Amino acid sequence: MPSAPKIILDCDPGHDDAIAILFAAKHCQILGITAVSGNVNLDLTQHNARITAQILGLDVPVHAGASRPLIAQPFHAEYIHGKTGLGGPELPELTYPLTSQNAVDFIINTARSHDDLYLVPTGPLTNIALAFRQAPDIIQKLKGVYLMGGSASFGNTTPTAEFNIYADPEAAHIVFSSGAKLHMLGLNLTHQFKIYQEDIARIRQIDNKAAHFSADLLDFFSQMYANRYFGKIEGPLHDPCAVMALTHPELFEFASRHVRVELQGSYTRGMTVVDNRGVKSNQVSNVEVAYKIDRDKALEVLCETIALY
Amino acid sequence: MPSAPKIILDCDPGHDDAIAILFAAKHCQILGITAVSGNVNLDLTQHNARITAQILGLDVPVHAGASRPLIAQPFHAEYIHGKTGLGGPELPELTYPLTSQNAVDFIINTARSHDDLYLVPTGPLTNIALAFRQAPDIIQKLKGVYLMGGSASFGNTTPTAEFNIYADPEAAHIVFSSGAKLHMLGLNLTHQFKIYQEDIARIRQIDNKAAHFSADLLDFFSQMYANRYFGKIEGPLHDPCAVMALTHPELFEFASRHVRVELQGSYTRGMTVVDNRGVKSNQVSNVEVAYKIDRDKALEVLCETIALY
Amino acid sequence: MPSAPKIILDCDPGHDDAIAILFAAKHCQILGITAVSGNVNLDLTQHNARITAQILGLDVPVHAGASRPLIAQPFHAEYIHGKTGLGGPELPELTYPLTSQNAVDFIINTARSHDDLYLVPTGPLTNIALAFRQAPDIIQKLKGVYLMGGSASFGNTTPTAEFNIYADPEAAHIVFSSGAKLHMLGLNLTHQFKIYQEDIARIRQIDNKAAHFSADLLDFFSQMYANRYFGKIEGPLHDPCAVMALTHPELFEFASRHVRVELQGSYTRGMTVVDNRGVKSNQVSNVEVAYKIDRDKALEVLCETIALY
Amino acid sequence: MPSAPKIILDCDPGHDDAIAILFAAKHCQILGITAVSGNVNLDLTQHNARITAQILGLDVPVHAGASRPLIAQPFHAEYIHGKTGLGGPELPELTYPLTSQNAVDFIINTARSHDDLYLVPTGPLTNIALAFRQAPDIIQKLKGVYLMGGSASFGNTTPTAEFNIYADPEAAHIVFSSGAKLHMLGLNLTHQFKIYQEDIARIRQIDNKAAHFSADLLDFFSQMYANRYFGKIEGPLHDPCAVMALTHPELFEFASRHVRVELQGSYTRGMTVVDNRGVKSNQVSNVEVAYKIDRDKALEVLCETIALY
Repeated sequence: MPSAPKIILDCDPGHDDAIAILFAAKHCQILGITAVSGNVNLDLTQHNARITAQILGLDVPVHAGASRPLIAQPFHAEYIHGKTGLGGPELPELTYPLTSQNAVDFIINTARSHDDLYLVPTGPLTNIALAFRQAPDIIQKLKGVYLMGGSASFGNTTPTAEFNIYADPEAAHIVFSSGAKLHMLGLNLTHQFKIYQEDIARIRQIDNKAAHFSADLLDFFSQMYANRYFGKIEGPLHDPCAVMALTHPELFEFASRHVRVELQGSYTRGMTVVDNRGVKSNQVSNVEVAYKIDRDKALEVLCETIALY
Repeated sequence: MPSAPKIILDCDPGHDDAIAILFAAKHCQILGITAVSGNVNLDLTQHNARITAQILGLDVPVHAGASRPLIAQPFHAEYIHGKTGLGGPELPELTYPLTSQNAVDFIINTARSHDDLYLVPTGPLTNIALAFRQAPDIIQKLKGVYLMGGSASFGNTTPTAEFNIYADPEAAHIVFSSGAKLHMLGLNLTHQFKIYQEDIARIRQIDNKAAHFSADLLDFFSQMYANRYFGKIEGPLHDPCAVMALTHPELFEFASRHVRVELQGSYTRGMTVVDNRGVKSNQVSNVEVAYKIDRDKALEVLCETIALY
Repeated sequence: MPSAPKIILDCDPGHDDAIAILFAAKHCQILGITAVSGNVNLDLTQHNARITAQILGLDVPVHAGASRPLIAQPFHAEYIHGKTGLGGPELPELTYPLTSQNAVDFIINTARSHDDLYLVPTGPLTNIALAFRQAPDIIQKLKGVYLMGGSASFGNTTPTAEFNIYADPEAAHIVFSSGAKLHMLGLNLTHQFKIYQEDIARIRQIDNKAAHFSADLLDFFSQMYANRYFGKIEGPLHDPCAVMALTHPELFEFASRHVRVELQGSYTRGMTVVDNRGVKSNQVSNVEVAYKIDRDKALEVLCETIALY
Repeated sequence: MPSAPKIILDCDPGHDDAIAILFAAKHCQILGITAVSGNVNLDLTQHNARITAQILGLDVPVHAGASRPLIAQPFHAEYIHGKTGLGGPELPELTYPLTSQNAVDFIINTARSHDDLYLVPTGPLTNIALAFRQAPDIIQKLKGVYLMGGSASFGNTTPTAEFNIYADPEAAHIVFSSGAKLHMLGLNLTHQFKIYQEDIARIRQIDNKAAHFSADLLDFFSQMYANRYFGKIEGPLHDPCAVMALTHPELFEFASRHVRVELQGSYTRGMTVVDNRGVKSNQVSNVEVAYKIDRDKALEVLCETIALY
């Protein structure tokens, strides 16, 4: 896979993070997976990153990073991901190693020693923000950042804020205002990539370890979404979109936008404020915001990828 | 017009306010027009309310109210409405009287002495907020409030805030949290009711005083919108929507929503935070939010109304 | 008392408010007492204003005003003033009339019809703020505003905020930024005018109706202060300071300061931010801040005043 | 100096930082000096730390750290410290080495490998905050943190905020809420340790390299204070207080207080909110706040220390 992009996948597995790992492993050179406190606490997210790599038979270093947000109080999403963060599948005993507890140093050192590294964050941006503040030289050296987070429309955790940004707004502010080349895959996009019961059935029929793992994850995940938000069984495949946008850009439509992170609102803290006002709004764009995904093709590519295991 | 609803039209004319007056005069019993600082300053808005009544041959008391917002610094929209607030038509010399400078007292007394009064605010909510805080007994006595302001999607004055709410967020908070029966006609709705050059031509051909006044207003207004926001000539007919929603509800689709006004954000002050998250979001609704207008029929009704003059 | 200053006493009795009424009645022409929601709710504060006037044998109109703050949630201080707002003395049956429920109109009309009116607010500034926004012409017409509220040092309700400002910060902002001629008697001053048990004994020995009423109030009040803040029996005579500063300015030292009201802090909302940085700080002063009181003489004057009943 | 406390001096020299280094070098084991962006930018502060060590003949590693605050925009104090940050003395050519650019890693590693380390920050708390978030295990391992910053009374940079906290409020929040054993030397204390012209003359007469360096620094510093704040020549010796409080605690009086950092105020961002309300205020203390210094003895000790060079 010589031309596959080199990435660090910074994540908080999490169901859709696990599927992002699954997808990235077949389309990218994953130089490392870095775990962060998010959907569940760091002990669980680093565990879940390792168990996912173990189940899928990967050989990728896993590093643990920040155990809490910069300023915000810790906030987790057990109501979607269950107590363990990976509710649903029966998990084997963990044998996969933890390479280090210094994810931030790993990000800094890897970025300094590669000219073509992408960061793909699918959790709160705490690790990335600590790396950017400690080693600002890496910001321009990165080839790009493809992140799942925020929204150009509504929120989920609050009416205006998406979970990853809400969980560490100050870290998000650091990343969004950093000058890094950002692609944002927010709720306005990822809610176009919902998985329904018939899709899960199709995945299960692929009938390999990755298929069963994915289908078990998605059964649980879409049921939790039904309970919490939608009232019907469907789950938006948030995190794989961040990887896909890098590896399969032809499936997406982006527009350049000025985006800021609200830190101070009573009702809007953690909102990604996207200026959608149009041609005469004259603020400088700092983010490529994804607005459209070809959902059917994206599902096709995902199924093909699962079949590669 | 015995069954026409009794209203106080609280406004800051303003081009679309003037057309709201024009529309209301044929479909409502206007007990009074109250002016407020908004699109331009109070001296101009009360003047423009009177000159509009004069041009249209109305016989309605006009009262001047608040000359500035409660807390925010005064902010006007000359970039849309011109220096006078009513740029475009050639205006006659003013002969129409100002009934009083006590709009707040007029609102309070009228609400206390009628059992079936509606308020139709199409400017910043300063007058209404002062009335609600000084005479909280009127809040439940009102039959309803149909207001143009806010948005369930994007803003105009800022990426998140609509002009009327941005201009006096604290007043908006008082009204939105008051318990009054609110219908909100925000930008998400009013941008569905844009007027294009062919529509203006059609209006002008009606060829009476109201038609020429309207067409001159809309020529100026849509050109200013082109300069400021859209880059093409088209003008959203915001304020008439608030009147129409009361008099022609069959043209609109509403949904009950929980709506709060953000007072504290760095980038979101003045935003109407509408919870659009769906069936499982369990906050109590306080506003009927308009989501859809039958634009073609609405334009038809407007033209028919202009033809009545 | 031809040269006694004409005042409206705007208050939320409250123990120290009652003593402020007692003091003002002998040194001012009280054109009216206006009650506001504050130490306790409006039903109680207007009742307590009337019962105080009745006990003292006054003949002053009492008007009820705002029943809640502009924006803040209602917050009362029963922990100091007891459930009724006037804990301690045995109160007679109320026979004193309520002149109106339109305190704001009374303030506006009185200010417009007198050239030498002072406002003396000793509660939250809601009534004054509503009057200033509804009738901005009165701001410069007033001869001055002597208010008890805020602090140039520590707070009481929070580490930084004094009760009257904390209870309605937006109203305070309106008054402090209005351009009115303000004298501020804050906690930094009023905590220099504490009443101890021996002082209460001295007052009781004056042995008239005002003395017994005052001593009963102060016994209760200083005990509540002991329970809540100080751990010993002593009560700061806040509200009488606002009246005294007007009638006996020789007992006070003032300095001109730039003062703003914080509306947005997580820990500082309701703080009066006084710039005490000294000669080179170049912001324009908007308030005469009291820094020193001759406590012994002030107590002397208070006792002499009580003896006049 | 076997019993001298082991410290890392985290600073942004800065005149009073330089004197803090001078003082610490004779009373502490300085394991390292870490520079941070603050009084001037990082290029200058790390330079100034090295030139100070060079002038004083020290042999201490100097590490450069954060080049900007976590969230706040960079803000410097050239108006006090001059363009170079060390205005006044003629400085030699720099020959003193920079040990590393990884101050944060140095802090983490040193804290992990010593059981008796103190941090003494005299600049913005960015380096310390990054270390605490990246390696939370060190927080309880530290023997203590003695910091110059904040205030229990007035501010300097704003009416309420002291420079070091104002320059990086989020970093200060992280440190103040960390659970570390904190001693705070704020403006309320350091303004008791002002240096006047006669004191500078006395120092100059000690007549060694440290004396001349100090006197030149203080001449410049106290003149800048005269220009900016006081109108007379006097300079508060802020930063040496943090070292002295550790090495000469007998010169200070402390009280346990609940202290929080305000992040959100319009006028109070960067304020250290100290609860001074007294015995009945029941919040848990997290900081030992210095309230009093024996100024004459402190000056004596400083002169004796300078004489040791």
